[in-house]
Amino acid sequence: MNIEGLHLPERICKPRKHGITILIDNGVPFNLFKDTIASAGPYIDFIKFGWGTSIITSCLEQKISFLDENNVDFFFGGTLFEKFLSQKKVDEYYNFCKRYGSAFVEISNGTIDIPNREKARFIEEFSKDFIVFSEVGHKDSVISNTLHSEDWVQFIQEDLEAGAYKVITEARESGTSGLCDEKGEMRFDIVGRIREAGISLANIIFEAPNKKLQTSFIKLAGPNVNLANIPFTDPISLETLRLGLRSDTFYTFHEGEYE
Amino acid sequence: MNIEGLHLPERICKPRKHGITILIDNGVPFNLFKDTIASAGPYIDFIKFGWGTSIITSCLEQKISFLDENNVDFFFGGTLFEKFLSQKKVDEYYNFCKRYGSAFVEISNGTIDIPNREKARFIEEFSKDFIVFSEVGHKDSVISNTLHSEDWVQFIQEDLEAGAYKVITEARESGTSGLCDEKGEMRFDIVGRIREAGISLANIIFEAPNKKLQTSFIKLAGPNVNLANIPFTDPISLETLRLGLRSDTFYTFHEGEYE
Amino acid sequence: MNIEGLHLPERICKPRKHGITILIDNGVPFNLFKDTIASAGPYIDFIKFGWGTSIITSCLEQKISFLDENNVDFFFGGTLFEKFLSQKKVDEYYNFCKRYGSAFVEISNGTIDIPNREKARFIEEFSKDFIVFSEVGHKDSVISNTLHSEDWVQFIQEDLEAGAYKVITEARESGTSGLCDEKGEMRFDIVGRIREAGISLANIIFEAPNKKLQTSFIKLAGPNVNLANIPFTDPISLETLRLGLRSDTFYTFHEGEYE
Repeated sequence: MNIEGLHLPERICKPRKHGITILIDNGVPFNLFKDTIASAGPYIDFIKFGWGTSIITSCLEQKISFLDENNVDFFFGGTLFEKFLSQKKVDEYYNFCKRYGSAFVEISNGTIDIPNREKARFIEEFSKDFIVFSEVGHKDSVISNTLHSEDWVQFIQEDLEAGAYKVITEARESGTSGLCDEKGEMRFDIVGRIREAGISLANIIFEAPNKKLQTSFIKLAGPNVNLANIPFTDPISLETLRLGLRSDTFYTFHEGEYE
Repeated sequence: MNIEGLHLPERICKPRKHGITILIDNGVPFNLFKDTIASAGPYIDFIKFGWGTSIITSCLEQKISFLDENNVDFFFGGTLFEKFLSQKKVDEYYNFCKRYGSAFVEISNGTIDIPNREKARFIEEFSKDFIVFSEVGHKDSVISNTLHSEDWVQFIQEDLEAGAYKVITEARESGTSGLCDEKGEMRFDIVGRIREAGISLANIIFEAPNKKLQTSFIKLAGPNVNLANIPFTDPISLETLRLGLRSDTFYTFHEGEYE
Repeated sequence: MNIEGLHLPERICKPRKHGITILIDNGVPFNLFKDTIASAGPYIDFIKFGWGTSIITSCLEQKISFLDENNVDFFFGGTLFEKFLSQKKVDEYYNFCKRYGSAFVEISNGTIDIPNREKARFIEEFSKDFIVFSEVGHKDSVISNTLHSEDWVQFIQEDLEAGAYKVITEARESGTSGLCDEKGEMRFDIVGRIREAGISLANIIFEAPNKKLQTSFIKLAGPNVNLANIPFTDPISLETLRLGLRSDTFYTFHEGEYE
């Protein structure tokens, strides 16, 4: 790719299946929401309305209309699904998603304690009417640490077999649980096992809420790695990381350069 | 409370005396200010114009007009009072507050070194013309650590007796002094002593500048705990914490749910 | 300076050569960009378009027009210069800066490994057509630690002799490299040596991306210290620090006050 005469890594363009960026909306006010989409639209594939924010947001309908007009997809955070499930109201959740015209849905068990096999049944069910993102990993860092890399591989495979479009690996907004340890370091052992098991990283979306994790995943899997939980402040700076335009990934992609 | 079929904890509605949320304005630009109030008005009771920001903000009058139109109250940060006091210009501060039509005022000694008894005299004085929030606790974490839980109880009682409407417990914007230790952990011993002394938590407002502290206080005192120093980015996410719509407080309020 | 009857330290007014504040634009959406400039214009001297963000920002031209109308100067981050240099395309960078009407340019070697002497030659070259900010210090904290205070002094002198208008000391957006150690503490030994060498701090601009560093530099060099890498959220709060209107610098400037 060539910008201003600079030789930069190739980026797949929207609409794309790989190299996607998912921003997390934690309750962004409406004009700032529009401002961000309008200014960085080509670098944003999805908005995730984080956890239960959507049901107390007065401007949800207007936000969704604006996304439609600007070719950005959306879905509701998995914690909202879990809240409905915890109150045995999955049908109400189904209706909620349908009412807002969501084509995508996230099915997770990051907070509630149900076996992955049961989550997989919900994936199967929802796959009939939605494109399903599933999520693997716990939000609690202590429980997360009890999950071995073998468990991760098994759960990811189970979810994909049940019909998940892609599997999101948990890291929370803080980047300190799920695929990350309490200190915010990526657990390389898990990613290594995922690859050894022959799972394509094209099917995985990594939650990467901060620059350190974004850098790690881009170095690991290239400029077109799928990333989620990107703060609303970050779409442009993430894109510069993908393109080697920031110090952190400056030397990741190019060879034969001035050194 | 019922939203989208979900059973959620009861929240007192505005105008309310308990369960209030105070946002801190650290110099937010005018359109973002309006955008936030317009998008999350029902979840915001007060704006505190942080420390001395108000006197160098060109759009202060317009901000205040917008608050009036949207039923959000305001007051100026206690540090501004202390600055006027340190220059022996308390009358000028009184006039400043009157000129902007403030119904509320914050009286504190978080930075200047005056005994609580002297602060209480100012509370008494200002109570004649304003509704007074007083603040207990030091901004300096070393000095904060010298305050025993007994001192906290005594100062809170002194302030309430002097006429304070509610007492705010210091934590700063960083959450690492006052009622918190340097590591950002809430000092449970102090809160325990406050309760033992028979002070109603309805009379206390806890500064809770981050999710960790917000979660701690909600777990401690329920969805209608009074919270201050909430960042401008957080009114919606705080409300989801109050309602158990985020992982951190998911299981705090409901029983008999799916587990 | 007198505001609302308060005696405050003297601040040099815009257009000014000392006491300048440089905000870093990390990809701020267009309306928020305008909102910030409009609300805090008197406290902002320059916008630095951080690292390579400028070349993937669709609204760059409009941003620059808005700056022109509001008497705020700008330049592109040094990492962009280094990217062009690493691909042996310095002429293209020159043309890029000219095309956008930039009067200023930043020349750095924070990422690429070239000796300071070579950087100084570029300073000399660009000085013919631009006002040059040079930067000293490495973005990598390990490499930064190998730089002795003597090296800092030598590089700063070399840059000034080559024609640099002012020299920026590296700290990154995180405040954990360059003039700061990994823990975010300012390296006082370096600043001490700079002063001993007779270099006026008026010629230095300190990167100070957070309150802790801003406070340190203001305490060190007064309210009119030159500061860069100020987050877009901070121009008002920084100005209150400069003026002693926040707890952190409350007692820095005034004597004979109430204590």
